[in-house]
Amino acid sequence: MVSRYEQGNSPSSPEKINGNFVGKDILSLDQFDMQSLVHLFEVTETMKDIAVNARPSDVLRGNIVTLLFYEPSSRTRGSFDAACKQLGGETIVVENPQQFSSVAKGESFNDTIRTFEAYSDVIVLRHPQTGSAQKAADAVQIPVINAGDGGQGEHPTQALLDLLTIKEARGSLEGMTGVIAGDLLYGRTTKSLIRGLALYPGNTLYLLSPQELKLPEKDLQDFSSRGIKLVEIDSEDAIPKDADFWYWTRVQKERFENPQDYERVKNRFIVTPDILSRFGGKNTILMHPLPRVGEITEDVDKDQRAVYLRSQIRNGMYIRMALLGLVLGRISLPPQGQSQE
Amino acid sequence: MVSRYEQGNSPSSPEKINGNFVGKDILSLDQFDMQSLVHLFEVTETMKDIAVNARPSDVLRGNIVTLLFYEPSSRTRGSFDAACKQLGGETIVVENPQQFSSVAKGESFNDTIRTFEAYSDVIVLRHPQTGSAQKAADAVQIPVINAGDGGQGEHPTQALLDLLTIKEARGSLEGMTGVIAGDLLYGRTTKSLIRGLALYPGNTLYLLSPQELKLPEKDLQDFSSRGIKLVEIDSEDAIPKDADFWYWTRVQKERFENPQDYERVKNRFIVTPDILSRFGGKNTILMHPLPRVGEITEDVDKDQRAVYLRSQIRNGMYIRMALLGLVLGRISLPPQGQSQE
Amino acid sequence: MVSRYEQGNSPSSPEKINGNFVGKDILSLDQFDMQSLVHLFEVTETMKDIAVNARPSDVLRGNIVTLLFYEPSSRTRGSFDAACKQLGGETIVVENPQQFSSVAKGESFNDTIRTFEAYSDVIVLRHPQTGSAQKAADAVQIPVINAGDGGQGEHPTQALLDLLTIKEARGSLEGMTGVIAGDLLYGRTTKSLIRGLALYPGNTLYLLSPQELKLPEKDLQDFSSRGIKLVEIDSEDAIPKDADFWYWTRVQKERFENPQDYERVKNRFIVTPDILSRFGGKNTILMHPLPRVGEITEDVDKDQRAVYLRSQIRNGMYIRMALLGLVLGRISLPPQGQSQE
Repeated sequence: MVSRYEQGNSPSSPEKINGNFVGKDILSLDQFDMQSLVHLFEVTETMKDIAVNARPSDVLRGNIVTLLFYEPSSRTRGSFDAACKQLGGETIVVENPQQFSSVAKGESFNDTIRTFEAYSDVIVLRHPQTGSAQKAADAVQIPVINAGDGGQGEHPTQALLDLLTIKEARGSLEGMTGVIAGDLLYGRTTKSLIRGLALYPGNTLYLLSPQELKLPEKDLQDFSSRGIKLVEIDSEDAIPKDADFWYWTRVQKERFENPQDYERVKNRFIVTPDILSRFGGKNTILMHPLPRVGEITEDVDKDQRAVYLRSQIRNGMYIRMALLGLVLGRISLPPQGQSQE
Repeated sequence: MVSRYEQGNSPSSPEKINGNFVGKDILSLDQFDMQSLVHLFEVTETMKDIAVNARPSDVLRGNIVTLLFYEPSSRTRGSFDAACKQLGGETIVVENPQQFSSVAKGESFNDTIRTFEAYSDVIVLRHPQTGSAQKAADAVQIPVINAGDGGQGEHPTQALLDLLTIKEARGSLEGMTGVIAGDLLYGRTTKSLIRGLALYPGNTLYLLSPQELKLPEKDLQDFSSRGIKLVEIDSEDAIPKDADFWYWTRVQKERFENPQDYERVKNRFIVTPDILSRFGGKNTILMHPLPRVGEITEDVDKDQRAVYLRSQIRNGMYIRMALLGLVLGRISLPPQGQSQE
Repeated sequence: MVSRYEQGNSPSSPEKINGNFVGKDILSLDQFDMQSLVHLFEVTETMKDIAVNARPSDVLRGNIVTLLFYEPSSRTRGSFDAACKQLGGETIVVENPQQFSSVAKGESFNDTIRTFEAYSDVIVLRHPQTGSAQKAADAVQIPVINAGDGGQGEHPTQALLDLLTIKEARGSLEGMTGVIAGDLLYGRTTKSLIRGLALYPGNTLYLLSPQELKLPEKDLQDFSSRGIKLVEIDSEDAIPKDADFWYWTRVQKERFENPQDYERVKNRFIVTPDILSRFGGKNTILMHPLPRVGEITEDVDKDQRAVYLRSQIRNGMYIRMALLGLVLGRISLPPQGQSQE
């Protein structure tokens, strides 16, 4: 949105939301301040009502959303696809354009993006290369929503749904105590979540990861300087009693060059019913961005504190509904001052 | 539907319809009794009117159906896709999830199914493994419709459309004389059709297949014990005059380990205009579940008795429309006692 | 449409539009006379209003369009997909059926086409084999729209959008002076455009191509005999001042057996800002059917005369909206005599 493409094609930073979503790209969690999150979560409540009750909606009637996925992800694509259709909008789904048609013939990324700009009102982009979403946003006049751009990139809707899930379950995003476990070195979602929680006062996070997958020192310093308290721990024994949430993540095999390195660390921290009962509190919710491949055993699923297959997935769809409606100006924000978190 | 997943994950049997489709899974033809079929076929008539006249419908407005096809089948997927959209509903299409994204990363079948549960009101599942549809139904709270689960599994909507086609053309499903030809050993559709016809009194089926592809003895006994009369024959000469229907099937190359075995039997029984005129009756309809690869020559197509490219395909869409509307409780059944077959 | 299939399966020619689109196939530019184009372009104006303003439309409500793409083309498929959905219709998307399902099992083209006929009101077909669209049209009763059938085939909607783009920008399709550059030997779009412009009086086209890719002599004679003036030129220096349009095309690598031959000619004629300023006029529009891979440098894009990433793509969607609405009889043509070009 707001094409800088014709003004020299230099990379730009995404515009801050500042309480006004209309026409904005959604590229990074850094665009959001607390007030914008409050607004977003309020709108999301309305979206939830539409989806849960299969209520016919005309919010996006007449709108077309292109889901342009250079990296197929049935989970994220399905969530955006459903989000759009829940609101009466339509989607154009394009998966793996690089294998087919024009892109395979050598077409530039810009030309492809501008083609789908002509067909639709929003582009949702998933791309393996970090920075692609910003590049797309610079090329077109319509809003671009980042659905994940590379290992070092962002996936802002994931972070937003994680925040919403904590807020819903624990009543607030301030003064929280949480555990983030697994891959803190490569993990995109964990870093975004930390950044999001750093917007709110009084939060403390315990970071539990294998030595090989610890949060890089510069990130640790950067995040800490934002006012969030980060505590590195080495074992489940150090988990504080009655944490508000545990956020477990998958160790991503695809990040390791050496399979043996992966094998050594992949099962270092696993949530079982026993671990949960020993170290979790009565109201500790257990989250996971999914997919999981063993970090949480299946017999944990039936525990009501395990929200990863319940509210967490659903909140992703509600958040995406809200964002689509907001950037297209089809949902009004509540009057300022009225909303209280 | 009615998750048994949290009660120990033991396999279960699908619930009988018993005249009430709301919230039910559609996994097997064995869920249907005669009265439920009568109801279903009545509703299907209304569906036909909507589709034939491209009548805008709001029956499924606000509903989302996930079409989760681990084995792509453009025919069956297209039929469900169209069925849903004919009624104003929307679909999320996921083909080959095992090649992409989360499933490729090692996600369990249960997690995938529960993800799409969060996005939609019904899951239509096609899967190469027998029993998958039941497994899916056990994992989620929303209805699951089986669109084919493996070579030994079921494909209930195919059997339902076959029954409807016979009923429409011959006016009844009782007292029918039919011929079922081709692969009776591996064929999933033929067995389902026999089971369906066994629900009605007075039916006789002539089974015509190569020696290598005969109906297994135990199936022959099982089906016969249900009251249907089965007669094995070896050649077209033994086809009874004026049969109500012929049901021809493809010999499935993919079932044979040895290509020579396939070559020897594949063209044993072929319907040509000559065969049809010599052994068929004036009102004998000729059916085929499709695809065909030579079992019926193309010059038969123009014969009005050949319904495979006509009502049989269309009836599939109407049946699927009816089922979607019924399991979602968006179509009311006629009051009991009123409907007469 | 109007199945000749049952009358002996002989190939046929597409029916002329003659001012009445209802139920017609759209297979070739040769079906259109001037009056039909006038009508089509008028309707397209209305379509543009719906799309530009994201105006909810019920024009195709209740209709289903199958997009059957044997050769995936995200650009053309996306355009038809969006066109249908802009008008409130729904699509069934089938890509690469030959790799999956029934077609892979040996099903005939006719059977596949007739299957999707049963699910939908129109079939949009893309197929690598020349003549496929006519073959499809002969097999079914519903309209078939040709979205490109092979290198020697047609792609009529591309030619229609090109004509519309010239008409919009230059106010007329008569008395035009244009340049067509690049691959005139294999290029499908260039030949269709010449045929289209030959319908109107007073047009002159300058043909600029490498020696190896000149328009075949028989085409040159054929087109010239229709009354259009064709002038072959060898270099940009021969481009007439103040041409109404330049139509640049990609040299298609996939047409060359020998990569060296391709390398030698591919960059023979490239539009740069310098070339455009030296040989183009103030109102010369620069067109390209896309994708491009270097024939026009990216720094030309910002020139307002460059319409390939602007109106040309968009006009494709509007034209397809109009055609879908017209062949389905859901849009009325303006009363005869009222419309003036």
